[in-house]
Amino acid sequence: MKLAIYGYGNLGRGVECAIAQNPDASLFGVFTRRAPESVKTLTGAPVFAAADIFNYQDEIDLVIICGGSATDLPKMTPALAAKFNVIDSFDTHANIPAHFDAVNKAAVESGHVALISCGWDPGMFSLNRLYASAILPQGTDYTFWGRGVSQGHSDAIRRIDGVLDARQYTVPVAAALDAVRSGSTPALTTRQKHLRECYVVAAEDADKTRIEKEIKEMPNYFADYDTTVTIITKEEMAKNHAELPHGGCVIRTGKTGLSGEHTHVIEYRLQLDSNPEFTASVLVAFARAMCRKASRGEVGCKTVFDIAPAELSPLSGEELRAHML
Amino acid sequence: MKLAIYGYGNLGRGVECAIAQNPDASLFGVFTRRAPESVKTLTGAPVFAAADIFNYQDEIDLVIICGGSATDLPKMTPALAAKFNVIDSFDTHANIPAHFDAVNKAAVESGHVALISCGWDPGMFSLNRLYASAILPQGTDYTFWGRGVSQGHSDAIRRIDGVLDARQYTVPVAAALDAVRSGSTPALTTRQKHLRECYVVAAEDADKTRIEKEIKEMPNYFADYDTTVTIITKEEMAKNHAELPHGGCVIRTGKTGLSGEHTHVIEYRLQLDSNPEFTASVLVAFARAMCRKASRGEVGCKTVFDIAPAELSPLSGEELRAHML
Repeated sequence: MKLAIYGYGNLGRGVECAIAQNPDASLFGVFTRRAPESVKTLTGAPVFAAADIFNYQDEIDLVIICGGSATDLPKMTPALAAKFNVIDSFDTHANIPAHFDAVNKAAVESGHVALISCGWDPGMFSLNRLYASAILPQGTDYTFWGRGVSQGHSDAIRRIDGVLDARQYTVPVAAALDAVRSGSTPALTTRQKHLRECYVVAAEDADKTRIEKEIKEMPNYFADYDTTVTIITKEEMAKNHAELPHGGCVIRTGKTGLSGEHTHVIEYRLQLDSNPEFTASVLVAFARAMCRKASRGEVGCKTVFDIAPAELSPLSGEELRAHML
Repeated sequence: MKLAIYGYGNLGRGVECAIAQNPDASLFGVFTRRAPESVKTLTGAPVFAAADIFNYQDEIDLVIICGGSATDLPKMTPALAAKFNVIDSFDTHANIPAHFDAVNKAAVESGHVALISCGWDPGMFSLNRLYASAILPQGTDYTFWGRGVSQGHSDAIRRIDGVLDARQYTVPVAAALDAVRSGSTPALTTRQKHLRECYVVAAEDADKTRIEKEIKEMPNYFADYDTTVTIITKEEMAKNHAELPHGGCVIRTGKTGLSGEHTHVIEYRLQLDSNPEFTASVLVAFARAMCRKASRGEVGCKTVFDIAPAELSPLSGEELRAHML
């Protein structure tokens, strides 16, 4: 399968690395809104201007769209689905139905396939919510995130006056996790589920007390959480907080038996050194499935729920049954 | 969907309970090789003689076959697939390809669908091996089982002279689990991965030392493991070891990045109070998917790898996208 990367930030670079790990995938090139000559790819893959992508329709099996969910993907994915098979990692949960409709319309009209909201949440976490709820209909779901960097929360801190840089870690509360893993079904408030750890580089003359107060009182982002703020130097930030780790777990506890006398716990857990590289790896596995769907003439928008797991693997059905079942 | 249960042991009773939890499923009846009048079902469902099942072809959407993998299922599943849509939980991993071929031939010839090897291992563990290996092609897989009752190992102990009853727990070695969860990829021997804990009720005049020695030296079952043997009373057995808990985890650690500089850990973990009831719950969820496939006119044998997750859920695609993605 010949893939293209549309958008070359952390996620695009992750996709480039993931393609290099899959012998049946090759990278046609990277499409960027920046000046192509200013962009150097990790693997030496060619760089094109985003606007030129429509010149290469016959040479690309599928475009992996690596844009942001807030403003990029709602425009990019339907526009590209009008000419290409596409995948994105749209992650604004509340807007998924509207995004699906827009992408589905474009893909059906153009006769292409599209997959939206692919990654780990939405993505692998969603799949595990679905499997677990189908298996244990009488049960309760919990999702914990972290320990990991939330880019949205880090950005929110950076907008505070006097802040030069910031990194926010979302941390699950150990006591809450332990309670859920035990099979009990506690009602947990926002504060009881996650902590927020903030590391901030402040301007020399900035009022650190005010910055800390502004962070801790910020509605939606921090006010409902136990939040710690640690002022660090630019050097400490570069040394200790340069990576983008993340992860978390989806847990469902449920009852079976004639009168619910048996308890079961299903847990899916991710521990990721690099959030964008893992998301990229999920995207490339699902790209394989979508190329197969396209080659069978399927059209329209899909989600991870619609993909039979066998389609993700380079192995044949026979090999999968013999070695993985 | 109208389901039938073929074989009424622990698993069949689990399926009966699971059907009761799913409003879109109903139980036509239980088919048994015992005298029907000697069998009383948990929910009052009617009991029929196994040999009579072919009289009810028009009234049953799918048969959940609850027989043993050693001798029952290799015969039962192809025979029933000649007249019904069927599911089984065939779990002799090495013989899956042969079983698949036999069942597929019968199902294709008769125009039915069949699903084999559905449960948690094979089943949900297999699915997680597949997803994780497709996402992280450069990685290493580990499967740990337990803490849980292995019925095969318990039976093996019961065959020793002087043993009245036995229960064997498979226990993952904590140090091995910790090492794998840390993201390292240790080479683990059989002995380093699992312990075997045996609880034995011995005849009053039996030589307990001999029994312990025979257990610990039994090839394949115990000789390669650190095994503990505890002699207990019949009353202790009834009080402390009446349940059939099980579980375990599938872990894949893999590398991403241009030169494998980032490590990821994917873990799927089950903690089950009742092994047969959980397996039964998986069977009923997949029965839903198979009834849908049958109603679309699909035929032939499938595995869990071939089923799009959305097909397992009673919710519509629209509901799934809005609430679970």
